[in-house]
Amino acid sequence: MDTTNDPARTSWVTSANAPETDFPIQNLPFGVFRRAGTQDAPRVGVAIGDMVLDVHAAATTAPTQFEGLALAVGACAHASLNALMALGRGPVTLLRAALASALDAKNGEAQSVLQQALIPMRDVEMMLPAQVGDYTDFYASVYHATNVGSMFRPDNALLPNYKHVPIGYHGRASSIVVSDTPVVRPVGQRKGPNDVEPTVGPSRSLDYECEVGVFIGAGNALGDTIPLQSAEQHMFGLCLVNDWSARDVQAWEYQPLGPFLAKNFATTVSPWVVTLDALEPFRAPAFVRPEGDPPPLPYLLTAENEARGAVSITLEVRLQTSAMRALGEKAEPVSRTTFTHMYWTMGQLVTHHAMNGCNLRPGDLLASGTVSGPSKGERGCLLELTWRGVEPLVLSGGETRAFLEDGDVVEIAGWCEAPGMRRIGFGVARALVLPAR
Amino acid sequence: MDTTNDPARTSWVTSANAPETDFPIQNLPFGVFRRAGTQDAPRVGVAIGDMVLDVHAAATTAPTQFEGLALAVGACAHASLNALMALGRGPVTLLRAALASALDAKNGEAQSVLQQALIPMRDVEMMLPAQVGDYTDFYASVYHATNVGSMFRPDNALLPNYKHVPIGYHGRASSIVVSDTPVVRPVGQRKGPNDVEPTVGPSRSLDYECEVGVFIGAGNALGDTIPLQSAEQHMFGLCLVNDWSARDVQAWEYQPLGPFLAKNFATTVSPWVVTLDALEPFRAPAFVRPEGDPPPLPYLLTAENEARGAVSITLEVRLQTSAMRALGEKAEPVSRTTFTHMYWTMGQLVTHHAMNGCNLRPGDLLASGTVSGPSKGERGCLLELTWRGVEPLVLSGGETRAFLEDGDVVEIAGWCEAPGMRRIGFGVARALVLPAR
Repeated sequence: MDTTNDPARTSWVTSANAPETDFPIQNLPFGVFRRAGTQDAPRVGVAIGDMVLDVHAAATTAPTQFEGLALAVGACAHASLNALMALGRGPVTLLRAALASALDAKNGEAQSVLQQALIPMRDVEMMLPAQVGDYTDFYASVYHATNVGSMFRPDNALLPNYKHVPIGYHGRASSIVVSDTPVVRPVGQRKGPNDVEPTVGPSRSLDYECEVGVFIGAGNALGDTIPLQSAEQHMFGLCLVNDWSARDVQAWEYQPLGPFLAKNFATTVSPWVVTLDALEPFRAPAFVRPEGDPPPLPYLLTAENEARGAVSITLEVRLQTSAMRALGEKAEPVSRTTFTHMYWTMGQLVTHHAMNGCNLRPGDLLASGTVSGPSKGERGCLLELTWRGVEPLVLSGGETRAFLEDGDVVEIAGWCEAPGMRRIGFGVARALVLPAR
Repeated sequence: MDTTNDPARTSWVTSANAPETDFPIQNLPFGVFRRAGTQDAPRVGVAIGDMVLDVHAAATTAPTQFEGLALAVGACAHASLNALMALGRGPVTLLRAALASALDAKNGEAQSVLQQALIPMRDVEMMLPAQVGDYTDFYASVYHATNVGSMFRPDNALLPNYKHVPIGYHGRASSIVVSDTPVVRPVGQRKGPNDVEPTVGPSRSLDYECEVGVFIGAGNALGDTIPLQSAEQHMFGLCLVNDWSARDVQAWEYQPLGPFLAKNFATTVSPWVVTLDALEPFRAPAFVRPEGDPPPLPYLLTAENEARGAVSITLEVRLQTSAMRALGEKAEPVSRTTFTHMYWTMGQLVTHHAMNGCNLRPGDLLASGTVSGPSKGERGCLLELTWRGVEPLVLSGGETRAFLEDGDVVEIAGWCEAPGMRRIGFGVARALVLPAR
């Protein structure tokens, strides 16, 4: 039995035992790092408390702790997680269990040799966790879809396909950036309802979207499908995603083929990928469809998915203006929601994506779409929170925001809690908005 | 002065001098090949008549013919064109000129040594020319957009943004395949107007779309734009694209975020990439907008683009049914159109794509969207040709087609002709439709 998630476990890395850490020994998310200020080749690490363990270095230093894991350890010498992802779930599960064992407070032998493979988090630069071959963004919150639809199409808010088709579109892989990469306000075409002609200039309604992403592990060959029963065998883990959006550009460009320049200027992801194994204690039933909603079509329906296809993740969006930063004030929470609000589970998204034989590859990123809930405080973007700017957000210092201003920092945080289990977190996906060039 | 396109030139590869060849010495398109039936590492080659010249082997065999071209020649030892593309236009122009000189009928010295770097086309397997990081599909034919719009949105055929915004969306990079890779009919959700509920099954309206693609050469950094004046410096060359589409799936899924599973099961590209230099004699004025249409916004407008931003390419779609194949009949032309019908030039598409700072990378593929013209015989997909199946196509043998059937082969061919210039061609983008799995 895998005891990696046992809440009683502690680590000899004492910062991992602090109640507030995102990275206790029960988490061990994977990321790619290098020592800050160097041009060292990036390597795979796991987060433990306020430290990063260099996995390949750890296995070299303490080979007895990693016996039989040569493939997985070898994949950790790469500059992205793709090679590790490509191995599929089994080897990653075993590697994580070995890491937990090596980092366990009871493992004095490992402690004595693994110190040299630990680097303080403050001394590392985190890189994009994977080379993303294709990035797909879904639209899986029915609350978000209904809110946005009622603003963009008042007569026709939720379209007839929504409750049958997990709606998604292809996003841009090249502009996916890791947390703390500044985002430049995009220039674009926009045409307001009262404008005679479109104009070109910096977006006047820059927004964030709070999302969860799943990185694909083992892929499928072109022409093959992924049954829902095995969808999770193709998932490596989850991260936080900010799908930046220029709402004025989006409103003008999106018909009939969907969002394009309104979104492809940047997508921010958190550096740490939390494995499905670490999320095991936080599984939850799929969304309970209201009376009258159709059931999922058979290919999107299994008893197991209904019973535990969702993951309970609390998501919080925080905003820090430049004025707040000048005063030394931290980012202020502006909304908090939960990932169990999603109409479709991540498994359903994976299965739907491949139902036509579309090949998913290791490192591909599938984002959930904006995670919004039924109440106003649970809305995952400013478009919804301020109802297209009509009801500006009032921050505690008195500043207001209809949309983002230059100098704002947006920080998305996520964590999981369950009775009797150790809390784990995702860290943050954070970025500063720079003025248009 | 670059005399590579001089129509008087001939090659010592005599098949390149045949009037009907797509690959005279004036073309020299780049592709990636290996000897058929081997697992040899793929290499970069150029097409010359019915032969392929292994560029790196040629330069090793006859170094004096390739002096000063070490970088470009080195890039040709790779298994994709990406490294060559990344060098930008200048080195590729010089390499092509050197190849033309080496293959010139007057160059007896090169002929005597380069034979060993030539492989008959029938003995090679062509590979995908580039690793496509991101694939974007545009919608640049106003005739196509109007036809499709009038079928999907009878009241609202051409949307108000069309003449201002080069409409595009992100496609799927993973499922781009090279010509002659069979395409499996996709399964999907579809719901006809008379259906009570959606059903799942093999698409009943599989279609092709005849398009032209541009491969990006030198990229731009995230946050940087590409002014129209320099857009062509970022283009490596053009190829033929078949953007396969499942129309029933598309009609049901595409709102509000655009095509997804209706298109991402396969996209076929031709193996040979024709450089912008080879297309130089076939440049043409940009689309002449009808009286009353708005001019392009300033960022999409230069005198040079208006004067010569288009490329005159004749495009022909051919269909071969399994019955025709059994009788030994060749694929039969079903439509013929020209790339000058496009409302936006490829330069405008590149500039628009990067106007928000979106980073294009070497090897990225931008497809034009279906190339349709004003007359019925110029429609680039069956959806238009058969008006959604209402007016089936009648083939010369008496068979009819509303949409594609299993066993059909679709072949897209393209070529360029101009008075006094040597005709050049693209070869074909071709594939057999296999039954759904």
